[in-house]
Amino acid sequence: MHTDLVAALDIGGTKIAGALVDGQGRILVRTQRATPAQEDGETVMRAVEAVLGELAAGPLWGRATALGIGSAGPVDASAGTVSPVNVPGWRDYPLVRRVRAVTGGLPVELIGDGVAITAAEHWQGAARGHDNALCMVVSTGVGGGLVLNGRLHPGPTGNAGHIGHISVDLDGDPCPCGGRGCVERLASGPNIARRAIEAGWLPGPDGDTSAEAVAAAARAGDPVAVASFERAAQALAAGIAATANLVEIDIAVVGGGVAKAGDVLFTPLHKALGDYATLSFVQRLTVTPAQMGTDAGLVGAAAAALARRPDATAAGV
Amino acid sequence: MHTDLVAALDIGGTKIAGALVDGQGRILVRTQRATPAQEDGETVMRAVEAVLGELAAGPLWGRATALGIGSAGPVDASAGTVSPVNVPGWRDYPLVRRVRAVTGGLPVELIGDGVAITAAEHWQGAARGHDNALCMVVSTGVGGGLVLNGRLHPGPTGNAGHIGHISVDLDGDPCPCGGRGCVERLASGPNIARRAIEAGWLPGPDGDTSAEAVAAAARAGDPVAVASFERAAQALAAGIAATANLVEIDIAVVGGGVAKAGDVLFTPLHKALGDYATLSFVQRLTVTPAQMGTDAGLVGAAAAALARRPDATAAGV
Repeated sequence: MHTDLVAALDIGGTKIAGALVDGQGRILVRTQRATPAQEDGETVMRAVEAVLGELAAGPLWGRATALGIGSAGPVDASAGTVSPVNVPGWRDYPLVRRVRAVTGGLPVELIGDGVAITAAEHWQGAARGHDNALCMVVSTGVGGGLVLNGRLHPGPTGNAGHIGHISVDLDGDPCPCGGRGCVERLASGPNIARRAIEAGWLPGPDGDTSAEAVAAAARAGDPVAVASFERAAQALAAGIAATANLVEIDIAVVGGGVAKAGDVLFTPLHKALGDYATLSFVQRLTVTPAQMGTDAGLVGAAAAALARRPDATAAGV
Repeated sequence: MHTDLVAALDIGGTKIAGALVDGQGRILVRTQRATPAQEDGETVMRAVEAVLGELAAGPLWGRATALGIGSAGPVDASAGTVSPVNVPGWRDYPLVRRVRAVTGGLPVELIGDGVAITAAEHWQGAARGHDNALCMVVSTGVGGGLVLNGRLHPGPTGNAGHIGHISVDLDGDPCPCGGRGCVERLASGPNIARRAIEAGWLPGPDGDTSAEAVAAAARAGDPVAVASFERAAQALAAGIAATANLVEIDIAVVGGGVAKAGDVLFTPLHKALGDYATLSFVQRLTVTPAQMGTDAGLVGAAAAALARRPDATAAGV
């Protein structure tokens, strides 16, 4: 049992959050800033420094023995750089070096945000106790991460688990990533809404055309809204089944805003999984909603930092 | 450096091969029998026992310290059973227990045949020195296996790397596995031939309608034959790119009869990879032909047995 703490940063296109986390995954101190995503790289870095400064000003900072960063991707953990799609001022930005300079040489562990969410679900959430798991975030984009053989699998550059950009429809629509028929292109919130609108779904009097509004319509029985969620579920099922065939996972955890649609998503997802997860060794695969809340990224970044300490045992990731 | 040997079995629908292999992957003794694939399970087992008996009759047998089995799948390494699609007499057949009974309690390691090929390519072939690799066999079926973090990743049941049955075309043709649009359904030899014939390709005077004959026609410039290989290459590229996005591999090794088509396959495969492997961390992915020959399954089964010995260092898998 450690009394040491780890520091954690969760860096996304909307907010930059920081925390001090203990060996049981409890957040003892938390702070955040809006991400100045459209500003130059140094301005974004100043927001990170402000978050770290607030953490460092508190009395617990001296107990932090490592720092974990979960960042919007792509990241390059081997180079210590990040190039978040939604933060154009950062391209191959040397985040690890810059953070280390501010924090006086704490060991820094960098992973992608999908990997961070996965670390959190494995440590404290729906994937706890599972040695082989896929955890996904289905929201504006589709991301994910993997636990293999009981340990987080970030991959050499910290980007493994990128299920949003595997193609499940090789002749399908172009995806902004340059590919075609990616899971994200079929299953993200904006694409669920776009497909419903293109098929004639009309929003209510409030004009809300979000995936959440499409989910509400689907719950009320609107067949076009239902069909758009069914198509998303089919793409997610094909992607999850592909992952299970490739690395043998026994659970897929699905979180993010689209997963909040509940049965509207999970009922067709369970059904479609039967169509794609056909081989004997993947048939027992469970699909279940995520359990961690909005601080999953922070808790996961902390887990990654804990796991890389020389005496790591606490997080088991 | 060990002077110990390991025994290896390679069990397929056509032949059952056995060998004694040294710590450098050299085959010192080799024997094989035809697989009585359509007979009852006990008859198939007697062929395995005959192979083992020939190995055990030689003077080197006493130096064998473990036995590795690579079997046509699906296998269940955790249960020690096999259910090869092409050997209907074996369903959940307790192969490990039966082999152990014959061999006097040698430790037995069971893996799928795709995993075995991968172990061989990683130890002695095209994936040597790569810590994260996908190795594939494209032939009557499409199989594969993974090396992750420098080690073979068989998965809990020994079936990981099943790239042949990931769907890259979620609305595509039904596959015998029960899925749709599987890589195997688009890229296997019989499907390359079927598609060419359906599109109007006519075999030569010898009536040969194999994928090899289609490859020869493609080399001679027949556009229908070329197109069938291009479609196979596209499916393989989508599957390889999906694997790279999920687990971060830096090399994909492609072997099997269809790979013998050479440039007819690899030129469109390299091109198609650019269409699907789009994210920054997968763009450096190399695709290359396999180097191991017909004994890859034996060498790989030996590698798996070596890797699981308590003092394992030799094979590095």
